[in-house]
Amino acid sequence: MQKITVVALDAMGGDNAPQEAIKGAIDAVNARDDIKVLLVGQQSIIEKELEKYSYPREQIEVVDAPEVIEMAEPPVMAIRKKKESSIVIGMNLVKKKNADAFVSAGSSGAVLVGGQIIVGRIRGIERPPLAPLIPTEKGVSLLIDCGANVDARASHLVQFAKMGSIYMENVVGIKNPKVAIVNIGAEEEKGNALVKETFPLLKECEDINFVGSIEARDIPNGYADVIVCEAFTGNVILKLYEGLSSTLLRVVKKGLMSTLRSKLGALLVKPALKKTLKAFDASEYGGAPLLGLNGLVVKTHGSSKAKEITNSIFQCVTFKEQCINEKIKERIVDNSTKEELSKDK
Amino acid sequence: MQKITVVALDAMGGDNAPQEAIKGAIDAVNARDDIKVLLVGQQSIIEKELEKYSYPREQIEVVDAPEVIEMAEPPVMAIRKKKESSIVIGMNLVKKKNADAFVSAGSSGAVLVGGQIIVGRIRGIERPPLAPLIPTEKGVSLLIDCGANVDARASHLVQFAKMGSIYMENVVGIKNPKVAIVNIGAEEEKGNALVKETFPLLKECEDINFVGSIEARDIPNGYADVIVCEAFTGNVILKLYEGLSSTLLRVVKKGLMSTLRSKLGALLVKPALKKTLKAFDASEYGGAPLLGLNGLVVKTHGSSKAKEITNSIFQCVTFKEQCINEKIKERIVDNSTKEELSKDK
Repeated sequence: MQKITVVALDAMGGDNAPQEAIKGAIDAVNARDDIKVLLVGQQSIIEKELEKYSYPREQIEVVDAPEVIEMAEPPVMAIRKKKESSIVIGMNLVKKKNADAFVSAGSSGAVLVGGQIIVGRIRGIERPPLAPLIPTEKGVSLLIDCGANVDARASHLVQFAKMGSIYMENVVGIKNPKVAIVNIGAEEEKGNALVKETFPLLKECEDINFVGSIEARDIPNGYADVIVCEAFTGNVILKLYEGLSSTLLRVVKKGLMSTLRSKLGALLVKPALKKTLKAFDASEYGGAPLLGLNGLVVKTHGSSKAKEITNSIFQCVTFKEQCINEKIKERIVDNSTKEELSKDK
Repeated sequence: MQKITVVALDAMGGDNAPQEAIKGAIDAVNARDDIKVLLVGQQSIIEKELEKYSYPREQIEVVDAPEVIEMAEPPVMAIRKKKESSIVIGMNLVKKKNADAFVSAGSSGAVLVGGQIIVGRIRGIERPPLAPLIPTEKGVSLLIDCGANVDARASHLVQFAKMGSIYMENVVGIKNPKVAIVNIGAEEEKGNALVKETFPLLKECEDINFVGSIEARDIPNGYADVIVCEAFTGNVILKLYEGLSSTLLRVVKKGLMSTLRSKLGALLVKPALKKTLKAFDASEYGGAPLLGLNGLVVKTHGSSKAKEITNSIFQCVTFKEQCINEKIKERIVDNSTKEELSKDK
């Protein structure tokens, strides 16, 4: 009998919920029979939406969650108070091993807090990083950490580097991924206090392919596969990436539409342009995993369409099949325990 | 008699030196008669290049500087050792009040170090920030600080906010410029330790138009005129801005050139596209000032063409005419001295 991956999906999260979330789930189960999706959210709404589709009934189940966490709610409060929300119920399904993973396009803050409080960290992991994939000229890179816990320590960044490396190698399929730390110059002596402290520790790691510093200008060209930074910097990079891409494409579009001549040209270039720009779109790869938890939590964009949801569900399957959490325990937690033991001697 | 602004120009700095630097100087003096440019660099090379042009002789002077600081040299060492370099000699011209400003497209590190060591800070200014203008959908914003001194304190950031505000209002001509601090969320309680400490201090400043936090995604749309951050973050933003813009435009170009049909379209859209993209180009506004010094130092892009050099020279004139350093002394230094005095009472 084949193994089934059970994914709890927040049917109420994101700008396009529940329609796109549910469509994403339907597409996933219609494509593969080794997946079961638990649609977590307001039962009557979900059931009504499901009537639109035909799908294998045994692969979809509705789990009622009458409450909804709004985007603007303070996360810690929301997680504590709204026990009947889709995020809290979905996370608890993972905690109780009724699901392998939880996918949500809802409030980032609530997903991050819920992951830590409800699902919980793997013992020995100091901080669970949020690691989105960002598009580059060569494909994608993993930006780790973009979470909510700022002012990280060097030991956190070393764990991020290792977890990111395992993820890129086994889930995204990049052999021997290049790991770099975000810095303001290429030289080892450059950087702020945190980077200067972390750099030599990364150099010492034998189980990652550390290539040194990466300047932010080299991120879009795909110089490194795993880009390590603390969450404040990661957040700035991620948000600027999104903001600048959409601004520039708007500027280009405005240029294309500005004269009659350019409008005619735009008709001719549109299909080819669309194709190359599509390659520069990370949502093809699924959402951002919150790594180092007792299970998997994936945060997708608030604006996720069905395709990103479907890809995120597939991502959960690969995560399970590749035994990522077992690898994290083996290569990071056990090693640090060994190091601790050898220091004690 | 009209006032003359004397600008020392590093004729040897940058990828296109000395040709573009010298052309930039020529264009500046041919356009305005209230400017004198001191071309600092290897005399014979400069004089040979000058032969190509006709220009008012009394507005250009060559100052010999036989040594050249290479881009890769460690800055502190280079400034200390190469006393006969264009950067050291140019900075000394400012220090000795033989020039009002020094403009260089050379090594950023050497310019930053030289500014602090040779030209020196205005008394009471804790750190001189490097403040490039970055393009936005609405025009430009000042990103302050992108310098070399990382791990700034809250009091530094407050001074950056005030200096940036004075600069944008008086040199760039934005009335009552909006000042925001780079943060990972809009709420006051978000951020790392530095931002949390700085936020209330900025709120208290009566002489700036503080609008709160800015998320990196809102930088390209021009939400704020003065974007305050410490240098590590500023450097990441600046470099990512440059890297992502060039990558995206390369991707767009690749799309335009990918099929025969799109190539035909590209011919039609080219002029309009070029025009809108040109608006998204900060070099039109000159280089990045290093603020808070006893004089003015402007760092232009390493890849500067004549136009950016010319604009940087004009920028120096406005800086002098608008008495920026006097305003900095009046509004920042004197105020903080007053605050110190009132605390002592």
